[in-house]
Amino acid sequence: MSDLGTIETQFATLATPEQPFVFRSGETLDHVEIAYETYGELNEERSNAILLFHAFSGSQHAAGINPRVARTPFWTQECVPGWWEPFIGPGKALDTDRYHIICANYIGGCYGSTGPWSENPATGKRYGSSFPHVTVSDIVRSQVLLLDQLGITRLLAVVGPSTGGLSAVTFATTHPERVRLVIPIATGVKTTVLNRIILLEQILAIENDPRFRAGEYYETGAPETGLGLARMISHKTFVHLDAIENRASKDVVQAEDRFSWYQAHDHVESYMLHQGKKFTDRFDANTYLRICEAWSRYDPVREGGAADALELFGRSRDAGHQYLVFSIDEDYCFYPEEQAALVDHLKRAGVPHLYLTVHSEKGHDSFLLEPELYTPHIQVMLQKASESAE
Amino acid sequence: MSDLGTIETQFATLATPEQPFVFRSGETLDHVEIAYETYGELNEERSNAILLFHAFSGSQHAAGINPRVARTPFWTQECVPGWWEPFIGPGKALDTDRYHIICANYIGGCYGSTGPWSENPATGKRYGSSFPHVTVSDIVRSQVLLLDQLGITRLLAVVGPSTGGLSAVTFATTHPERVRLVIPIATGVKTTVLNRIILLEQILAIENDPRFRAGEYYETGAPETGLGLARMISHKTFVHLDAIENRASKDVVQAEDRFSWYQAHDHVESYMLHQGKKFTDRFDANTYLRICEAWSRYDPVREGGAADALELFGRSRDAGHQYLVFSIDEDYCFYPEEQAALVDHLKRAGVPHLYLTVHSEKGHDSFLLEPELYTPHIQVMLQKASESAE
Repeated sequence: MSDLGTIETQFATLATPEQPFVFRSGETLDHVEIAYETYGELNEERSNAILLFHAFSGSQHAAGINPRVARTPFWTQECVPGWWEPFIGPGKALDTDRYHIICANYIGGCYGSTGPWSENPATGKRYGSSFPHVTVSDIVRSQVLLLDQLGITRLLAVVGPSTGGLSAVTFATTHPERVRLVIPIATGVKTTVLNRIILLEQILAIENDPRFRAGEYYETGAPETGLGLARMISHKTFVHLDAIENRASKDVVQAEDRFSWYQAHDHVESYMLHQGKKFTDRFDANTYLRICEAWSRYDPVREGGAADALELFGRSRDAGHQYLVFSIDEDYCFYPEEQAALVDHLKRAGVPHLYLTVHSEKGHDSFLLEPELYTPHIQVMLQKASESAE
Repeated sequence: MSDLGTIETQFATLATPEQPFVFRSGETLDHVEIAYETYGELNEERSNAILLFHAFSGSQHAAGINPRVARTPFWTQECVPGWWEPFIGPGKALDTDRYHIICANYIGGCYGSTGPWSENPATGKRYGSSFPHVTVSDIVRSQVLLLDQLGITRLLAVVGPSTGGLSAVTFATTHPERVRLVIPIATGVKTTVLNRIILLEQILAIENDPRFRAGEYYETGAPETGLGLARMISHKTFVHLDAIENRASKDVVQAEDRFSWYQAHDHVESYMLHQGKKFTDRFDANTYLRICEAWSRYDPVREGGAADALELFGRSRDAGHQYLVFSIDEDYCFYPEEQAALVDHLKRAGVPHLYLTVHSEKGHDSFLLEPELYTPHIQVMLQKASESAE
């Protein structure tokens, strides 16, 4: 079991008809709630807070046990343990004896934050396809509002693995005065052509499902086959392909009714179908599309309103940021070249940084599974940042 | 224009109710026709014939101009020039002044060979989903029957680029006495985990399209969105991703009505949508599924009825074969490791071979676009094989 025991999701109201949330697209929402959790105590000086951005399909529930969350029908058994449990707790990378860790579900998410599944108070119906387009800077801005409510002026660190790293870098470069240490893990600084193609495939897989009905499916049933295929398309980038055959033969579950139009012939196919299928119970296709779009359109320079990367990361230099950048050697989701591009920007802008590549047989998923590869450096850098905060 | 002028597709009847074609699955067809073309004259000794296997979505029409083909509704403007025109003609890699080149549409194909679109004489209806499962060894066996009809006992060479190479290797190892020189180009000797995952994604993309109707769509309209998505998924492996952005900005056509459910936001997306869309007019989804399956299940050792690769390629050694193997350095469809695995088998079995890697910025598509990288070696090896045939 978890060291942290049972954790409850909390909710913060960030927008009202008087103070609507304005998306980068110009669309607005009069009512925004954000679901979040915290681990460890906030100190009196409010100087020990760490903001953790979750990855694509993650949630606010990063550590401990959370058996249920209000305002979401997508909380399945798979969601109950925290998604970054090996990294958060007493003595762990994010040490709850020393730090106050905050993790919030993205705006547009499906785990309690206002998203497409939420009811629009103006109409009494779920937003569905009318939910605004989301960008990474919208995600960041919503969480800055959350920090305002929590009375946290300056974070000790922002941490972002995978797509969470897009938000971490954008947080640091759009609100440089609000953080000291930036930890992007296995993430990117621009969306590559391959990223965009694979994201487009996922978008089309969902939109091609006749049950998608242009996003208006909450009454009629979710586009499960399309969402399952989308998840399969992305899943292959998370794991190490050399290992997939092994893994497949161990935890395979033969696909049954839901995907009965295709009879899997071998372990790999059966494993991939299983990955797609189990995901469809715990995620909303409309949220999936919003996050695909946010990632596909991600451009930190443009979203940060900078002229170029030199100006953007100059903000980090001027604010005295320290970066700790991790690559995973055989990562097929965010290739090592993408972190190298980030580090290149940091070098040119004169931003102090440490840059490490971990060697793993797990592929991209290493960031979830192998805390021993990351923990020592994270602990030392947090300790140093704490000292400079005193 | 082409040196070869206008070429006509010919048809051979390979199975009758008295002599049905038995697929590897045990299924049978009482009536099989194969569409094929030839270029260059067959000599009196019938010793100068080369059999060319086309790739996944290719056809029997490899060179010259063929404005129309009977027995297929899929012959569009895109099909009119031969798919390997730069390699076939007087003085080219496959020199029509010296050799007699034969190229046949796969059994199960959609360009005139008996396939799912063909009418089943027993029912008067198109086969659709009742068409048998196809394997690479079925493709090979159908073309051996064609050679029998043409009175060609022993080929000078079999040539197979891309998925055509699967057939070339299986031809050589299942009918070793019928060929001298084997030229596999940018192909594989086993189906990798990544191949199988990407093929499964394509299968599901088609089957998820409601218009697919389990393969019975000839009366009601083709599953164009599913087939288009499948083609997009495979297309990204054919091209060099660094180059795709350039190419996209040049020959992009904004997707219109057919894919109107998705509004492309940039050149890459628009280019990929265009690739998917233009393919749907010229290919049959049922054929696409048959070829996906044949590739996904490909295992030359098992299909060749051998105990292992050493025994399989021992047949090539005993028959005095020579191999000429080409890799493309940045090939994301058949990775260079796959040709290295083939060459490793050849070495262990003691089969004479030449093994070259061409360096290209075109990715897998190099085999269609850059004859200068392949032609000299092919010419020399064909010349040597001719001398040994005399």
